[in-house]
Amino acid sequence: MPYIKIEVTREGITREQKNELIKGATDLMVRVLHKDPAATFVVIEEVDTDNWGWGGESITDIRARQR
Amino acid sequence: MPYIKIEVTREGITREQKNELIKGATDLMVRVLHKDPAATFVVIEEVDTDNWGWGGESITDIRARQR
Amino acid sequence: MPYIKIEVTREGITREQKNELIKGATDLMVRVLHKDPAATFVVIEEVDTDNWGWGGESITDIRARQR
Amino acid sequence: MPYIKIEVTREGITREQKNELIKGATDLMVRVLHKDPAATFVVIEEVDTDNWGWGGESITDIRARQR
Amino acid sequence: MPYIKIEVTREGITREQKNELIKGATDLMVRVLHKDPAATFVVIEEVDTDNWGWGGESITDIRARQR
Amino acid sequence: MPYIKIEVTREGITREQKNELIKGATDLMVRVLHKDPAATFVVIEEVDTDNWGWGGESITDIRARQR
Repeated sequence: MPYIKIEVTREGITREQKNELIKGATDLMVRVLHKDPAATFVVIEEVDTDNWGWGGESITDIRARQR
Repeated sequence: MPYIKIEVTREGITREQKNELIKGATDLMVRVLHKDPAATFVVIEEVDTDNWGWGGESITDIRARQR
Repeated sequence: MPYIKIEVTREGITREQKNELIKGATDLMVRVLHKDPAATFVVIEEVDTDNWGWGGESITDIRARQR
Repeated sequence: MPYIKIEVTREGITREQKNELIKGATDLMVRVLHKDPAATFVVIEEVDTDNWGWGGESITDIRARQR
Repeated sequence: MPYIKIEVTREGITREQKNELIKGATDLMVRVLHKDPAATFVVIEEVDTDNWGWGGESITDIRARQR
Repeated sequence: MPYIKIEVTREGITREQKNELIKGATDLMVRVLHKDPAATFVVIEEVDTDNWGWGGESITDIRARQR
């Protein structure tokens, strides 16, 4: 019965990448914990860069400085 | 002081249904745990079907196959 | 595919009450959203009263004052 | 390694306020727990007022009555 | 900056398995999203079987019936 | 109606520090968002160092190497 929540910044993740995340996280539960895939939920939460802070500043500001 | 988070796929939940979920979850806390409704939060998180995985594939793909 | 997280203070919830919470939250998803119970997870998280704050103080302190 | 999630209703929070929340929550971890800011994540989740319940009704309904 | 929360029932997960979950989830973020491992948190939450419901009953009850 | 979840490793946080976290997070909501303290929940989740991964390894392993 695993539930996996993946929180990442919303920066252009494609549907193919989401499918890979879902498949990879589910496979991890099967391989390591021998869980049933049919009892495994994966939820991806995309967070605006304004709403994610790291080191005391937003990812928006960090990205602006990296350019 | 309960906090209840309800995560469901975003598939056309109406405002009336949301109100029923809020009322029902709050009543459950009152009935079973004798909690004060004024100290009960309910948060509904609607998740895109691309972002919810079950059995290793997205709900988008599952729904497409069900049609 | 609902996932419901119920967070409450750890203050002597019995196994019977937990079963009622699980049954009640699952029934709510079936009744309001027509979800399949077999695709509904309910997770109860019990939180120490030292670790739950309300109005700027811990539930431990609030309970001590209520006595 | 703290992770802080701030959930609030989506009611016009500005980018300046978000920056203050990120800075304030990070500073709190440094001041109280001596954590490294570079190892501190802050995530702000804005929730529609239809999706937040308090006292058994949505914030949308509470706000409508307050007017 | 990914944050991954893995919620599973507390049923004897070893430290080696936890290390595999941490490594596997981090590698997934690197491989699919090209994230920096140094900016990836993985948190494993073990939940008592009394506190996890599936299909309207607790995992404790489901396990008892499976024996 | 803010809800703030603070997740940190379980490494000897005192009750005094918890009280400071609760007070500090609540004050932040009041100062920045003008929220009512009586409508603000703060929940502190302490996570075993075996269960928190950073950079692909557990905090337990990172701490052992730092000694």
